[in-house]
Amino acid sequence: MWQNINNKLYQKFTFNNFSEAFAFMTRVAIEAEKANHHPLWTNVWNTVEIWLSTHDAGDIITKKDEDLAKAIDALLT
Amino acid sequence: MWQNINNKLYQKFTFNNFSEAFAFMTRVAIEAEKANHHPLWTNVWNTVEIWLSTHDAGDIITKKDEDLAKAIDALLT
Amino acid sequence: MWQNINNKLYQKFTFNNFSEAFAFMTRVAIEAEKANHHPLWTNVWNTVEIWLSTHDAGDIITKKDEDLAKAIDALLT
Amino acid sequence: MWQNINNKLYQKFTFNNFSEAFAFMTRVAIEAEKANHHPLWTNVWNTVEIWLSTHDAGDIITKKDEDLAKAIDALLT
Repeated sequence: MWQNINNKLYQKFTFNNFSEAFAFMTRVAIEAEKANHHPLWTNVWNTVEIWLSTHDAGDIITKKDEDLAKAIDALLT
Repeated sequence: MWQNINNKLYQKFTFNNFSEAFAFMTRVAIEAEKANHHPLWTNVWNTVEIWLSTHDAGDIITKKDEDLAKAIDALLT
Repeated sequence: MWQNINNKLYQKFTFNNFSEAFAFMTRVAIEAEKANHHPLWTNVWNTVEIWLSTHDAGDIITKKDEDLAKAIDALLT
Repeated sequence: MWQNINNKLYQKFTFNNFSEAFAFMTRVAIEAEKANHHPLWTNVWNTVEIWLSTHDAGDIITKKDEDLAKAIDALLT
């Protein structure tokens, strides 16, 4: 579940290993480019943390962030 | 299951969409580089076809191919 | 330069090594998904071959193919 | 140039756009897996920040980090 932390949608994803985590990142990269909306994200080995907010709207959560969050969730179902 | 076709190990993989197929390709790319042994492979949308043989051994199937085939299979289990 | 071969736009790209070739493939994958138009493509180590045609139009070259070809070329400039 | 910050090797990389940045990340992912040594890294659009340290040695900089830093630098030359 995405949490609202400091005006950002945040979620931490955990995988079995780096290879799985990076494959997920590749899919998120494709979604981000399709939406022309790019996350702040961090990876260490099997974990990926993503923060979504809209810079042009003043670094708050907008529909763009909610839509990208849904697209990311859809990758894992 | 990998098939032996014309002195190559061959398998066709099918996914739900391009994004899933390319995520798999990213993982295979990592395995190929780790093994320093690279496939001939083709992708169209949700399908990935892989042929493995060892050029330096005269384009036949060697242990290198069998090992990479196993590493690729392990990605999908 | 893209060539018109059997009703497909075709080009072969050569890189210094597999890593460079696959990084290019990742960028092409993003462009393909953005266009919702996917190539037939093949990779062996440092070479990437791409064929573009439009299945829904009867496997001929359409503006979709020309646009994706331009987007791919733009990655290399 | 990599800097030594809080017992980590750190460098920030800037690219022309997200696609270039993520292509670089794909190449770094391959190097990390080849070395079985994985970075902490963050991406926002065209920037990639990488921190390298060795957890098993007590979160200090070791030869593993220096070697991965060199491998990453080699991707950009």
